[in-house]
This record gives sequence, C-alpha cells and structure tokens, in this order.
Amino acid sequence: MEVQAGKLLQQINYPSDLKKFNEEDLPEISQELRQYIIDIVSVNGGHFGASLGVVELTVALHYVLNTPYDQLVWDVGHQAYGHKILTGRREIFYTNRLYKGISGFPKRAESIYDTFGVGHSSTSISAALGMAVASHRKGEHDRQHVAVIGDGAMTGGMAFEALNHAGIENSNLLVILNDNCMSIDPNVGALKEYLTNISTSRSYNRFRDEVSHILAKISALGPDAFQIAKKLEKSIKGTILKNSNLFESLQFRYFGPVDGHNVKQLVKVLKDLRDIPGPKLLHCITVKGKGYALAEKDQTVWHAPGLFDKITGEIKKPVYDKPKPPKYQDVFGETIIELAENNPKIIGITPAMPSGSSLNLMMKAMPERAFDVGIAEQHAVTFSAGLATQGMVPFCNIYSSFMQRGYDQMVHDVAIQKLNVVFCLDRAGLAGADGPTHHGAYDLAYMRCIPNMIVSAPMNEEELRNLMFTAQQENMGPFSIRYPRGNGVMVNWQKPMKALPIGKGRRICDGEEVAILTIGTIGNEAVKAVQTLNQEGIYPAHYDLRFVKPLDEELLHEVFKKFDQVITVEDGCLQGGMGSAVIEFMADKGYAAKVVRLGIPDRFIEHGEQPELWAECGYDAASISTQVKKLAVKRATQTIAS
Amino acid sequence: MEVQAGKLLQQINYPSDLKKFNEEDLPEISQELRQYIIDIVSVNGGHFGASLGVVELTVALHYVLNTPYDQLVWDVGHQAYGHKILTGRREIFYTNRLYKGISGFPKRAESIYDTFGVGHSSTSISAALGMAVASHRKGEHDRQHVAVIGDGAMTGGMAFEALNHAGIENSNLLVILNDNCMSIDPNVGALKEYLTNISTSRSYNRFRDEVSHILAKISALGPDAFQIAKKLEKSIKGTILKNSNLFESLQFRYFGPVDGHNVKQLVKVLKDLRDIPGPKLLHCITVKGKGYALAEKDQTVWHAPGLFDKITGEIKKPVYDKPKPPKYQDVFGETIIELAENNPKIIGITPAMPSGSSLNLMMKAMPERAFDVGIAEQHAVTFSAGLATQGMVPFCNIYSSFMQRGYDQMVHDVAIQKLNVVFCLDRAGLAGADGPTHHGAYDLAYMRCIPNMIVSAPMNEEELRNLMFTAQQENMGPFSIRYPRGNGVMVNWQKPMKALPIGKGRRICDGEEVAILTIGTIGNEAVKAVQTLNQEGIYPAHYDLRFVKPLDEELLHEVFKKFDQVITVEDGCLQGGMGSAVIEFMADKGYAAKVVRLGIPDRFIEHGEQPELWAECGYDAASISTQVKKLAVKRATQTIAS
Repeated sequence: MEVQAGKLLQQINYPSDLKKFNEEDLPEISQELRQYIIDIVSVNGGHFGASLGVVELTVALHYVLNTPYDQLVWDVGHQAYGHKILTGRREIFYTNRLYKGISGFPKRAESIYDTFGVGHSSTSISAALGMAVASHRKGEHDRQHVAVIGDGAMTGGMAFEALNHAGIENSNLLVILNDNCMSIDPNVGALKEYLTNISTSRSYNRFRDEVSHILAKISALGPDAFQIAKKLEKSIKGTILKNSNLFESLQFRYFGPVDGHNVKQLVKVLKDLRDIPGPKLLHCITVKGKGYALAEKDQTVWHAPGLFDKITGEIKKPVYDKPKPPKYQDVFGETIIELAENNPKIIGITPAMPSGSSLNLMMKAMPERAFDVGIAEQHAVTFSAGLATQGMVPFCNIYSSFMQRGYDQMVHDVAIQKLNVVFCLDRAGLAGADGPTHHGAYDLAYMRCIPNMIVSAPMNEEELRNLMFTAQQENMGPFSIRYPRGNGVMVNWQKPMKALPIGKGRRICDGEEVAILTIGTIGNEAVKAVQTLNQEGIYPAHYDLRFVKPLDEELLHEVFKKFDQVITVEDGCLQGGMGSAVIEFMADKGYAAKVVRLGIPDRFIEHGEQPELWAECGYDAASISTQVKKLAVKRATQTIAS
Repeated sequence: MEVQAGKLLQQINYPSDLKKFNEEDLPEISQELRQYIIDIVSVNGGHFGASLGVVELTVALHYVLNTPYDQLVWDVGHQAYGHKILTGRREIFYTNRLYKGISGFPKRAESIYDTFGVGHSSTSISAALGMAVASHRKGEHDRQHVAVIGDGAMTGGMAFEALNHAGIENSNLLVILNDNCMSIDPNVGALKEYLTNISTSRSYNRFRDEVSHILAKISALGPDAFQIAKKLEKSIKGTILKNSNLFESLQFRYFGPVDGHNVKQLVKVLKDLRDIPGPKLLHCITVKGKGYALAEKDQTVWHAPGLFDKITGEIKKPVYDKPKPPKYQDVFGETIIELAENNPKIIGITPAMPSGSSLNLMMKAMPERAFDVGIAEQHAVTFSAGLATQGMVPFCNIYSSFMQRGYDQMVHDVAIQKLNVVFCLDRAGLAGADGPTHHGAYDLAYMRCIPNMIVSAPMNEEELRNLMFTAQQENMGPFSIRYPRGNGVMVNWQKPMKALPIGKGRRICDGEEVAILTIGTIGNEAVKAVQTLNQEGIYPAHYDLRFVKPLDEELLHEVFKKFDQVITVEDGCLQGGMGSAVIEFMADKGYAAKVVRLGIPDRFIEHGEQPELWAECGYDAASISTQVKKLAVKRATQTIAS
C-alpha cells in the first residue's frame, strides 16, 4: 500500500513521539492524521465518520495522558482508528479488518494501548470504573482513567448503570461524552434532546452567566437589593449547580460543552481535568465525519461507506455482470412493509439499527408503525412484549450478537408469557470483517433452550419471506428467525408468500450413504458441495431443517431410518446448537448413526470475509465435500473389506 | 386457613366493589388490607415489607383507575399482594407461593388484572410504554397506563432505556416512582442520593418556592427591579423548570414528592394526573414495611422474613433435632472472606443482592473490597472485567436467572478477552417458591456455548469451597460456579481448601449395568437413589462430572467403555445442557450407549418447594431410582431372553 503519512505524522510511532511536539503543531498533526485515515479507508474500507470526528480528541488525549499507564477506553471502538495509528499501528493500519490483519476495534491482544476490547456499545464507563477502582486499591492515585463514549452509546442502559455506580465511588474517572447526535443512524430519545438543549443557547453555562449578570444588576440597586441578590445567588448555587444538570444529578462534575475540534483547547481542558479528583464528565461537541464534506453531510451513509474515490467522493459500488441477489436485511425491510400493509397489527422495532436492519424502509413508509428505540436492546424486547400484550405483532429486529443484550427479556418478558413477538436476528452466523464481537455464533444454542420459542432460519430469500409470513399469523407465540449478513442467492425473490408448517423441514435432494442436514443459508454451501460430489459420482442426501425448534421429528425419523451416516452443518456454535439438537433426538429415540457435526468450533473466531471464515471453521462447500467423501470412502472401503 | 378479612375488605372482591366506597373509607380499607397481608404472610410466608409499603398506593390506584381497562404494571412484583387481594384473589391468597397455588408475582395467566408478568426488575416502564403505544395506535386515548417502579428498580439500565424512549413518545404513560430507598437491601448509587436530595429540604419544589418568594421581594423594590425580576423569572422558568430535574431532563413531567401513605391525597393526585397527557412521573415517598414496626425498622430482614408471630414479631426459625448444614450462599459468603484474607486481589461484587448472596458478610468485613453496584447485572459483569484487566480477581455473584441480564457482557467483555472473572451463579436450578421467573434453568446451556468459559458446579459445600479456591488462582480465565438455593449436605464443611484439576470429575461409586452421571448438588439425589437401589440388589455406578466444560474426557471414555446404559442428571434444562454435552462427546467419539437424560423439560416450571419440583420434572431420588430400574430390568429381561 502506497499511502504516505504526512511529514509530522511520519515521525510519530507512539504517543511518546507525539509528546515531543509543541502544542502549536497539534492542529497540523490532527490534519495529517485525518488525511491518513481518509487515504487508507478510501482504498481499504472500514468505519469512517466516527474516527474523523474524534481526530482532535484522539491527538489531545494521547498528548496529555500518559498512555498506556493512564487508561483510555473507547466505547464501541468504531472511532479508534486514529488511536491505533498513534499507538504503534500506523504502518500496519492498511491491514485493518482484513483476514489476519489488525482488528477494526480496540483489542487487548493487539496492543497494550488497547486497554479494553470493544465492539458492542455502552461498556466503557463500567470498564474504566473497574480500572479506576483497581488503581485506587493499588494506591496508584496519579493514574488517569478515561472512557470516551458517544451520545448514542450513552442511551444504552448499562452506561446509566455505570454512571449510577461511579457517582458514589471516589475514583479518578473521566467520562468524555462525544456528542455528535449520531449512532450509526441519527441518535434518538429524550437524552439526545436534552444534550442538544444544553449545547445550545439555553445551556446551563449561559444560564449561569445570565443569572450572574442579572444578580449584578440587582445588587447595583442598593444595599437591600444586594442582600437579596446574595441570598438568591446562594440558593441558586446550592440547588441549581448541584441539580440542574443530569450528570451533576448523578454526582459527576460536569464540564463543557467544549468544541471537540479545537485541539489546543482540548489539551488545555484535559490538563485542567487531570488534577480534579472523583468522577467527572466532559461534554465534547463533535461532528461525525468532520473534515470530509460529504461525510459530514450524510453521516449514516459515511459511517462505513466501503471503498470510495477520496477526491470525488464517489462510493465505489462493485459492478456485477449479472443481477445480484438482494441483501437479507433488504428482504426483511421490504417484506415487513408488504406484510404490514395487510396486517395492521404489525409493528417494527429496531434498537438503533434502522439502516443496518433496513427497517428504515418501514420507518419511512409507515412512520407511525416503526420505532427506533435507541441503543437499547433490553428495552426493545420488553417494549415489544408490551405491544404484544395488546394484540400487536411486533417484529423486533436485533443482530444476533446484540440479542445477547436482551436475553433475559426474551426469556422473562416474552417466552414465559408466550407472547407473539417475532425476533428477526440479523447478522447471525459469522458476520465477517467486524470479527468476534459481532459474530452471531451463539443464538441457536441460547435460543433453543428457551421454552415456547420457535427457532427458525431460512435457507434463502423466499424462505425468509415465508417464515416472516408464518410468524405474523395469530397466536404463534415467540418466534425467532435468524439470517446472516450479506446477500442471498435469488435474483427473483419477490414471490407471493405462504405460511409454512411449524417445525417442518424439507428435503432438498434425496441421496444415498450420507445425509447432510443443514439449517439456514449455509445450506447453500451444502448445495454447492452436493453439486460437486454428484460430478464425482457421490450422491449424498440433503435436508434443510428450517426449524431447530420444534425439530421436524418426522423428517429426522426418515433420515435416521435411512442413513447411518449424517453430517450436520450450521453457521453457529457446535456446543448446544442444531447438531446437538439432532443428536439429542438420536439419543432419545434410540438411533445410533455416525453424526459429524460441522459448525463454529469452541473458540472465538477472528475477522475476515465470511467464506474465509467458513473455510477456516470447516463448513464451506469444500469442507462439506471433504467430510462427505471421508464418510463415503470409508463406507466403500468397509464394503470392499467385508 | 382461618384468617378473616376486615369488615370493609370483606365486601371487596374486585376494584368495582372498592369504587362503591366513599373516599372517607379508604384509610380504613387500607388498614384492613394491611392487616390482611400481615395475617396471611405471618402464617404462610412470602414477601412482606414491599407490599406493606404500597398498601395506600394500591388502594388509591384501583380506586381511581378503571382497571383492568386501564393498565397497571407492577415492577418486580414483590409488592403486588395488595393488588392481588383487591383483584379477585382475596380468598385464595392463602395459597400464595405454594405448589399449585397462586404465584407470588403478577402473572398474566392468573388474572386479567395482572397485565404483565414480572419477577425480574426494571421491566415495567418498557412494558407499559408498549401498552400505551398500542392504545395510541388503536385510538383508545382515554386509556391509562401506569408503571409502578421502585427506586431500586430504577437503577436497572433498562428502566433508563425505557425513560429515554418514553420521553419522546406522546403516549399516555404514568410512571410512579415508589421511593423507599430500598432494594431488598438498602438501595445504592448516585440516583438514590439524588432522590433523597430532592425529597428533602433542598428540594426542587422548595427551591422554586424560595425563588418565587425572593423574586417578589425584588419586585417590591421598584419598577426597575420589577423588570429585572421578570427577566430572571423567565430565565429560571425556561431553564430550571425544564432542566433542573433529572426526569424533566428526559422529558417526563415530574410531580411530587408526595406522601405515599396518605391515601386520600394519592387519590386526588392520581385523579389530577389522569387528565395530563404525555409521559409523566409521580414521585411517591413510601416506607417499606409501613405499619409493622419491626419491618419498618429492619427492612432487609423483613423483605421476606418467613413465618413469624405477628404479635411478638418473633421470626419462627425451624427447629432441628440435629445440626443443620449451611446454606450454599453462606458457604460462598464465608469462603470468599477466607480466600480474600490470603489473596489481596480478590474483590466481591453483587448487583443489589448483599443479603441474598451473603456477600454482605464480606461487605462488612472488608468494605473496601466488596461492592454492591445496584440492580445492574450488566454493569456488574463489565465492572468486574475492568477490575480483572488490572490483575484483580473479581468474584461476581449473580443469581442464575439474573445472569441472563449480563449475558452479552459475559461473552463480549469477559470471555472474548479471557479475563479472570469468577462468576458465582447462586439460585441455579429450580429455585422454589419464586417460580418460573427465578428458576435458574438455562445457565448450563447458555454458558456452555461460550468459548474460554469454565463451567462448573459443586456437589456439596466442600466442593464449592474447593472450586472457589481453584478459581482464584492465577490465569484461570473466565470461571463459572453454579450452586442452588437452599441448604447443603455437610454439617462440618469448613475444611481446608485445595485446588481441583480443571475439567476433572470424580467417581462417587463404582457399579454395574448403569452409570449415573450428575452435575452439581442434584448429585445428592443420585446418592440417595443409589442407596435405595443397593438395598434392592441393584448397583449403578455414579460419577460427579463437576465440570460441564471442559468435560472430563478421560472419565467419559471410562464410562462409555464400561457402560452402554447411562443416565445423566442435572438441575437444569435438557436442551443443550450437561446431558447434551455428554451425548455430543458420545457422538463425536463414536460410542453408542443408551443415554437417558434427566433434567428440566422444555416448558416453564411453576413454583413450589424444590423437592416437589424435582419430582414433577422426574429427577428426584425416586425418579432416578425408577429410571435405573427400568434400564436394569430391561437388561435383565434381555439377558434372560437371549
């Protein structure tokens, strides 16, 4: 990669190098850092707007703090590219998010400067508080602990839980609220409006100034007035300064708002804050995408735009020689509108993923019936449950790995009460370049143990539509549908929908010697494997289970009666997943086939393109072929031997 | 049961009966309701203080609201006994929490007045908002939606997520903050201190009055002063009234604080609030245990005191003819202190369960090293992770069913980073009288699929101590230990501790024909079964797996080589649990034994005493015996036949 860093940035490998520069140089360094991010991301892809928005903050933090002794936790981590570049990874930054390259998020195993691995939102205050309490216990009172958290992430409940706790701990904790009014999509909720409020002319600080000014005027009226003014001032200081700010209410000292793009001012403020003990919050106003005009203008698109021409700003869409199947998220997004047009009970819910889930289509078409509830998976699930008690049919769309955040609510508020909530788990299975924090590896296991829960996964777009159609029928109870990141396999997918029988799978092809059982879209890898094998004269059968729960017992009886060699394939963890359900059935019913289970092994899988990862885990088409052949050949050998 | 309701209460079967009385009668009705709760709980057991604290609120709500058309959601539900008594369940209230009796919590299947099933904390605002949004969509604009939530429950993050969302929905939602400064233990955190602050003399309302008063004085100074005062008033109203209250910051209209024991005042306020649209919060000050002096005084003990003499207040401790083994929670509570005395890195963490987990012992003995972080499971886990990054060894004690709230954090913040956090999962397995919301049924399944996680369960007190000792050693990584509610089996349990090899089980007794594999304390039921069977000349082997992950493969090879009939027993769900792990092993290694899996079936189990529930689910000693005999007899029959 031929990207050249600017002449100052070139000299900075670590924060110690940065500290050698004068404060006067910091704007230039910030600009070079911004440019370097633009240069690399434009040709390499990745998250974009978030890191541009915190360039100055990143430079100021590493300039003032004594990292890594001082501990800096980035919430979510989308925005940590500048941090990575300044902390030993400038020259390998071009490998960002590539298979075997550096991670797109801070990661402890990657650098001592990455104090806490992130990816999911709203964890930073809890983690930094843990660090601060540990330092306090160890007597390291000079050590700074800083959590940088966006206003979007601040809507996640655990951030509030952490503030509530931190407010009563006398730890050296600085929370920097990176307020850019954005999650991936525009941030929503009362907190956002509050923050906007205090950042504008009606702000707390201005009010304070205004009151001082008026009090001075009153005092000038004479000695009586002076006394009254004094009393009023005391009252205001005692009450307002203590309580008039949400964060002060929670016993944080509030500072700001400050301009997050004025690096010299940031340096000054951060230096001042270093010496103030206890929990404190710096409210920092930034612009997502700062410094790249198009990114500032359309912040959602430029959150992670893919490759683009940095000069023209043209986003490079891959060119296909034939029509491309749709993304599964778009199949969801368009189908829910279609269903909702015929079923007035349907409501769409997303926790801060309108564009990621494509629920933004419904939010636009039917704004009264689609809700972005903020980064709030717990609330999203129980809000859905509340809707369902009134006969609504909520489609609650949450990425598989984020659904882990709403697990208790799914059990406690939905399943126990057998409410009609449809969970659409996007990004299920290995999710690609975002890596281990974002892989949807565990949902089949953690959903399958919940009573009353229907657990399904479509093999293609048509099946997804039919499952959605099925799920919105009366009295279906809790119904989950998982599907992966990325594109499907059907160009003409908008076919009329029909209800599918619950717990019924289907035979894709009959065969001999070996049966392949698949769940979900990974079944298409099995289809490819079977095609290849057929050319070699090997004819395995292939069944798509469609439902992991309830299992299609009829189908499984058929399989185990006919086959004593079975391969299960799932884009999910092996422990407790679909394959496990199949062998539970086998054991319970007294069958004794050889079952080879393919899926995600018992370790965290790093980032990479999905096919790379499927191959690594041994369940892409080639791996499935190999497994079938092993069994078939073994059988042939045995047959010859006998 | 001979308990007689008071003469007014006798006439009230439903809220419609309550409404026939004059407001003047409500204090008397409240008193009778309180007395009835005392009369029944004293002889029947159950939660006590919480319901006493909301007697007046309960009467006022059902008097003013048009329940069940108007929708009333109780958070947690400890406090809903009065509600149950006033809504058709007075005469069966004596069956509260008994096997086949009514539930100790609101439950949709039990009554149309129970709008939302509860048990876990902080769900009510989300649920009520869902209901309110549904009503809005249906055009039912006269319908009221009320969530009653404690100040403890308000510390749970999802309550904040719900406030953040509700603040921007124009729904008819009333949140009643039942502020008694308590969870089960005293409430903690910055929010609690804030609420105390606004409830006392420095309160917002008093400040407002004070300012009005001063402004009047200023105005009196002359026309210039009048103009200035006007300006100041405008500024204060614009800023302070908008922002000076945490809930107003989140766009709720704030009312209160009001005295939650003045039923007539409550009726007036609730009537007034009925006509105010949009999200609003009524801050209601109550005393937990109100009206029963001892309960007011020692609120934690009287949260759920067991049986007691209502006159003397003497809590009836069961009398045993021989020394009684300890509760598992006390083994934890005492052992962590013992370990922490020798290992300065150990820190104890509980989310609002100091007395329930017995971490209160450590909080007393080592206040610097034990943290109650509030009802905040998510934060508890990630705070622990933060501590662990600094070399601390946090013991994070969370009930199994509440751990569902911290599931994502366990995966994302602990397991991916392989941090040394010890999870002690109390109340694992069927938890007894609290019922389905509190059973710890799923943890073995949802933990087992997480890479890097050690999943263990001790069979007795000595084993629990040894597992805790093992877990606190260097570099153990994420380590979970599950144990049940209730008492152990060893009178002399305080033996010296030793490290156990990871992933190693143990043989309890050798045998023939059938091997019983157990995990955790339910193994003691197997011991009883084996004793009985031995007397009948049947000699099954019994192995205690001790670890579900990593599995003891050596032990399992031994078992499957020797036995072709295996029974697995776990106090946990069958889908994906320990038995499932065992058959995964069996399938992977090519064994083909008959495996009978005993555990919690695929449905939600109601409340009852643990032995009743084990019997219902078929894994108490008698059930295990029966299963062994079935296999042994079948074998005998087969042997004779062949």
